Amino acid sequence: MGLRFEIVAEDATTGARAGLLHTPHGIVETPVFMPVGTAGTVKGMTQGQLEELGVQILLANTYHLYLRPGHEIIREVGGLHRFMGWPHPILTDSGGFQVMSLKSLGRVTEDGVWFKSHLDGSSHFFSPEHAVEVQLALGADIIMTLDECVEYPYSHEAIHRAVKLTGRWAGRAKEKLSAISPQPSASETQASEQSSIGNRQSAMREPSAISSQPSASEEPPSPQPPVPSPQQSPIGNRQSSIPAPSPLQSSIVNRQLAIPAPALFGIVQGGVDRDLRRESAEGLLELDFDGYALGGLSVGEPKAEMYEVAEYTARLLPRNRPRYLMGVGTPEDLVECVARGIDMFDCVMPTRNARNGCVFTSQGKVIIKNTKYARDESPLDPACGCPVCGRYSRSYIRHLFVAGEMLGAILATQHNLHFYIDRMRKIRQSLLFGAFAEFHSRVRAEP
Amino acid sequence: MGLRFEIVAEDATTGARAGLLHTPHGIVETPVFMPVGTAGTVKGMTQGQLEELGVQILLANTYHLYLRPGHEIIREVGGLHRFMGWPHPILTDSGGFQVMSLKSLGRVTEDGVWFKSHLDGSSHFFSPEHAVEVQLALGADIIMTLDECVEYPYSHEAIHRAVKLTGRWAGRAKEKLSAISPQPSASETQASEQSSIGNRQSAMREPSAISSQPSASEEPPSPQPPVPSPQQSPIGNRQSSIPAPSPLQSSIVNRQLAIPAPALFGIVQGGVDRDLRRESAEGLLELDFDGYALGGLSVGEPKAEMYEVAEYTARLLPRNRPRYLMGVGTPEDLVECVARGIDMFDCVMPTRNARNGCVFTSQGKVIIKNTKYARDESPLDPACGCPVCGRYSRSYIRHLFVAGEMLGAILATQHNLHFYIDRMRKIRQSLLFGAFAEFHSRVRAEP
Repeated sequence: MGLRFEIVAEDATTGARAGLLHTPHGIVETPVFMPVGTAGTVKGMTQGQLEELGVQILLANTYHLYLRPGHEIIREVGGLHRFMGWPHPILTDSGGFQVMSLKSLGRVTEDGVWFKSHLDGSSHFFSPEHAVEVQLALGADIIMTLDECVEYPYSHEAIHRAVKLTGRWAGRAKEKLSAISPQPSASETQASEQSSIGNRQSAMREPSAISSQPSASEEPPSPQPPVPSPQQSPIGNRQSSIPAPSPLQSSIVNRQLAIPAPALFGIVQGGVDRDLRRESAEGLLELDFDGYALGGLSVGEPKAEMYEVAEYTARLLPRNRPRYLMGVGTPEDLVECVARGIDMFDCVMPTRNARNGCVFTSQGKVIIKNTKYARDESPLDPACGCPVCGRYSRSYIRHLFVAGEMLGAILATQHNLHFYIDRMRKIRQSLLFGAFAEFHSRVRAEP
Repeated sequence: MGLRFEIVAEDATTGARAGLLHTPHGIVETPVFMPVGTAGTVKGMTQGQLEELGVQILLANTYHLYLRPGHEIIREVGGLHRFMGWPHPILTDSGGFQVMSLKSLGRVTEDGVWFKSHLDGSSHFFSPEHAVEVQLALGADIIMTLDECVEYPYSHEAIHRAVKLTGRWAGRAKEKLSAISPQPSASETQASEQSSIGNRQSAMREPSAISSQPSASEEPPSPQPPVPSPQQSPIGNRQSSIPAPSPLQSSIVNRQLAIPAPALFGIVQGGVDRDLRRESAEGLLELDFDGYALGGLSVGEPKAEMYEVAEYTARLLPRNRPRYLMGVGTPEDLVECVARGIDMFDCVMPTRNARNGCVFTSQGKVIIKNTKYARDESPLDPACGCPVCGRYSRSYIRHLFVAGEMLGAILATQHNLHFYIDRMRKIRQSLLFGAFAEFHSRVRAEP
């Protein structure tokens, strides 16, 4: 297990629970919303602003970072945490979803997926093993297995094939990670931040770990001498072949040492077909992942169906592992899906909507460019305690959007992220105080 | 006088001096650099970030705010300070420079200037009086007279005509402001911030104070009963006709009351012709402005000439009034022109260059998109103490620019503004400690 998940409260009548996710870069309180930092940045936010908002963990997209600036560069400068100046937990997706949703798909084969770069049209290939390698180069705390995502609406045949393939790929990803990083015990995964900031996996320095040529071959890790270091446990770390640091060099040389193995999550597919969801979940459970994601939801199916399938699938998964509903959702979805047993969420909605001038408020959505706000001196949400609502009026923010000023997107993003983070904080607090049912019905009554 | 200027230190061998500029929204330490907030925002910066950088006073462009969102809207929502969420000093330009530099000039007449909106091509007219009225609606602490800016290179005839016209316009602007706002004594202009935040000049509520039709007519202010208020001196304030507030209403009703009259600066023109500069300055001195700006410099003339003319002109101006060199300049220019007696500067260079990926450092300019920075883990400027250099690498910021991520512009802007503000802080400190000459030669020796 690459991470430890503690449940600290469970709701009596729903599947909702509050937990603590122990990662190499700190503890994440669940349920949690992860803002999307596609290219290693949550668009428009500084890392300091994210910290002020109480963001605990970011999601970054492997596909985008692989293409630009390239995972090799990120590994060379010490990993994504160091690259971004974000010393807190990070989850990376496998790249599969982008590859398939950006219409860049060339061909899915048993071995992996061919795709074309949306930047320059160049051809690339991701196998399940490559996806692990690229994510190790990025150095996230939680990484995902490559899965096949099928576009909605889908045929039963297509979704069944995707479940089978995703299962086989999950096995290969698990095997790849195990071969590179012997699994530490749970207690050893709670490495100090000092040893893990600036991670640089020397095992990743072989050239062409990822190439644009398809290849299922895996190089077994070459044995390397252990490097003793008082700051970290060698177990579960990929060791560098460079000599032990002298005291003067230690702050630099530590960066050459490895981080604890990341946690690996398997992804349950199966669309809205219960039998396929069960088949997918059972296959992954045999492989014993650190956590389980629910993929292929919120892709166009009716909302009620999404909730039902999320609930059905969550019940198939072990109680003591985190459950991550990928790409979901609206503020309402957060509460509804926590109630159905989900612990982790990510979605571009708060940030993308913000950039389009759509802000979430306690009174519903506000389309800030609307002329009626031109003289509106009230904040975006009079009930909101965020830094934006404490300082700026709708009138001003509307002006910024109309004038195409960056600050419009910045302020709307800050506000929307606060709305999501704050909602999740309230959900968690209601769970800790045994008041989730009450909170749940209050949210349901909102406009 | 709308503001008080105190000189607290003078350099023994140059014209450099350190001062305190007392405005209705706080004291500005001079010499000072004013970041440009064209449309009521310093592009990419939150007001909180500007405060953290130590920005004391912003410049906003009357032309842009007049066109969008419109000065009437800004007046209605309580003035620019309140609109922007910036409770600190603001200076507005007269709009003249933009009108003439945006090639939107239709025609300069004795009465004023016709121009077309760069947004929709609509026709507008600014007279010296209108420029005052619009700026009063915005409610800045320091406002500028409308001047005629001549493009470089210019004929002697053109520049002479501009000097004469600018002089006559300055007189009309002064008269207009005096008619609207009886001049308070210097001590009375140190109004508390409480009384001036949320300024709303009821005198400006007459319809069509600004219209798109040319008109030199001025409506004399209608006499209105004074409204006693413990929070402010009625002298020098434009009084509202609304009744005195009840205690419960006071926080709202105070916004209906007026602010102290802004300080009005005259603008010395004359190109690089000493005689014309003298003629222009002498004309303005007779009118007795709160401060004096140097216009028409850094428009293409050789640098040495700019420095000489700045020095020559500064010497023509009274010691006890602030001197503002408009639109200047490079980090080097700041030191050189402080040495020549300048107290105030504004320039788009730190912010515009930042958005283009050009950052100022102690080692000279860095073009951050350059490939050589792809793996450069050092900060933008290793000698810099700004929040950006404390957290992010060149490698990351280059990536942000290459990927077209907003955060690139944000971080570069924050860094460049810090560079300018920090330079000015050091200049001022060297003046206070009698070490300006030393600082001056150190800067001259820099790359």
